[in-house]
Amino acid sequence: MVHEITDITIIGAGPAGLFALFYAGMRGASAQIVDALQEPGGQLTALYPEKDIFDVAGFPKVLAKDLVRSLVEQARQFAGQIHCNQRVVALEEADGHFVLVTETDRFPTRAVIISAGIGAFSPRRLPQAAAGPWYGRGIHDRVTSPDDFIGKRVVIIGGGDSAFDWAHQLRDRAASVALIHRSDRFRAHAATISEVRAAEAAGRTSIHTFHELHDVISDGDRIIALEIKDIKAKTTRRIDADVVLPMLGFVSDIGPLGEWGLTVENDEIVVNSQMETGRRGVYASGDVTMYPGKLKLIATGFAESATAVNQAVHFIYPEKKVNPGHSSNLAVFGQKDD
Amino acid sequence: MVHEITDITIIGAGPAGLFALFYAGMRGASAQIVDALQEPGGQLTALYPEKDIFDVAGFPKVLAKDLVRSLVEQARQFAGQIHCNQRVVALEEADGHFVLVTETDRFPTRAVIISAGIGAFSPRRLPQAAAGPWYGRGIHDRVTSPDDFIGKRVVIIGGGDSAFDWAHQLRDRAASVALIHRSDRFRAHAATISEVRAAEAAGRTSIHTFHELHDVISDGDRIIALEIKDIKAKTTRRIDADVVLPMLGFVSDIGPLGEWGLTVENDEIVVNSQMETGRRGVYASGDVTMYPGKLKLIATGFAESATAVNQAVHFIYPEKKVNPGHSSNLAVFGQKDD
Repeated sequence: MVHEITDITIIGAGPAGLFALFYAGMRGASAQIVDALQEPGGQLTALYPEKDIFDVAGFPKVLAKDLVRSLVEQARQFAGQIHCNQRVVALEEADGHFVLVTETDRFPTRAVIISAGIGAFSPRRLPQAAAGPWYGRGIHDRVTSPDDFIGKRVVIIGGGDSAFDWAHQLRDRAASVALIHRSDRFRAHAATISEVRAAEAAGRTSIHTFHELHDVISDGDRIIALEIKDIKAKTTRRIDADVVLPMLGFVSDIGPLGEWGLTVENDEIVVNSQMETGRRGVYASGDVTMYPGKLKLIATGFAESATAVNQAVHFIYPEKKVNPGHSSNLAVFGQKDD
Repeated sequence: MVHEITDITIIGAGPAGLFALFYAGMRGASAQIVDALQEPGGQLTALYPEKDIFDVAGFPKVLAKDLVRSLVEQARQFAGQIHCNQRVVALEEADGHFVLVTETDRFPTRAVIISAGIGAFSPRRLPQAAAGPWYGRGIHDRVTSPDDFIGKRVVIIGGGDSAFDWAHQLRDRAASVALIHRSDRFRAHAATISEVRAAEAAGRTSIHTFHELHDVISDGDRIIALEIKDIKAKTTRRIDADVVLPMLGFVSDIGPLGEWGLTVENDEIVVNSQMETGRRGVYASGDVTMYPGKLKLIATGFAESATAVNQAVHFIYPEKKVNPGHSSNLAVFGQKDD
């Protein structure tokens, strides 16, 4: 699909990208976001929606997912779209503008802001070759509908928050829940671990520490069990399974951004204080950027996005002032009494 | 009074200064703010507490006073003090540290962050020499307790929000309210102007456009009337008055900051991307700063404050990393599942 041309296309719907979308609207520019994930929010949504964040200015503390919701609401005051499930593959130039190319779509645009964070990220896959053929046919690394697991024998692989959250949440739906982890160190909220331990004591959940997947056993059409290996004793045994949920975290990749003629060092894009990348019309903001004094904070990402948008607007419409004076721009907003 | 030495002393309790105070706490540094005004919040508190701000990230809209309250609450998670009514007069160096000197106190400190916005600001005074002797004895440019005006004949001079807000709010307390303004253009909320106009129609308030103060008439001890001048007709007349409230807005002055060996252009301090001023140990953030691409937004002020704090902490404690990794620092905060 080829979309209509837009002033500014932002790569990444994390906090920096969402604020860029809002701020482009404030500046009267048309704008949109493309993001590889299914939902806006970047890492906040994908990795720790339930975590409190303490260092966003104005919020003594805020749940990551609540911050995302507010940023989306703030951006939605304007018409800019957020296009999810769009993995960027190329940046082309044609007829005096850019075309941002994703796996499925083409987004013509007058300027680009890269707010890609750590890059596109995706669930880490099971390393065992035996697992490969069963992805999508019994092995699922995303839970879209918990009710799909009603009456199923569920095996969860992992020891982090996601593994424990799903072990806890699927307990009453599944016929059984087994949690497989390569060590006995868990990286999950103590409260959730306690809940899962309690379910284990009640016999409804089993926890297998120092174990890993060894083989997938099927009846040809579907998974019926797993062979799991005790990595200390080097022994294997079989546990029944209908469904396997690998919860192994995410891997990230800045992907093609490294090939766009930008200065990229350690997967970060070098920018100046105007958030210019060195390629005309291409700006960056947020965790993906690097400059002297750079801090990887959400608060700095917001500011960089505002700066990037202003520079992009000035690039597209040279007659518009770089410094707009708006809302909280005190020098302008603060008309004096008299 | 000489205070105990502190790691970081921040000049200015506006949004940038308040976030610097919070963030210094996050970094484990002792910190404090000095501010010339009576309350924290800078211009947001002094000039437009009731205005909505739209471009602070994460808030689709927020009342200025509510943002200040949240920022103060966020900062108060740590022990840093906010010292109000402290007008800075000098920055000295002694025994390897700084001493920030105000009109009354001395604040020894290891580093300084100037988040002074447009500088110290104070109510604009009546230009008429006749008014001078009566300041504090019948002429008041701040209303601390509205009940002081019960039964008084109040004259308000000005045509902005403050003038109309007080005309409206004192209406039921005062014996009479007269509003004097040099033109017929008012800079106040339409709703408030309507309320005051309605009070005028009811005979409880009088509005005198195209008039200004000409003289103060007293019985020797206290004001009994004003002579006001019609600036078109050039005629004068007398109106009874017990109390005069000049609501003429604020004047600002960056004051002695211009004399501290910093690069100051147009009342702004030139900084690099680390928010360094060029004088070792002295940083700046917020509206007072200037660098290529600088945007005078609250959102950028927040980010500059975080950067300034980090650099200051590194200056004071060279063994501490500049880049801390904290809370919303995604690369650190985002420990992966597994």
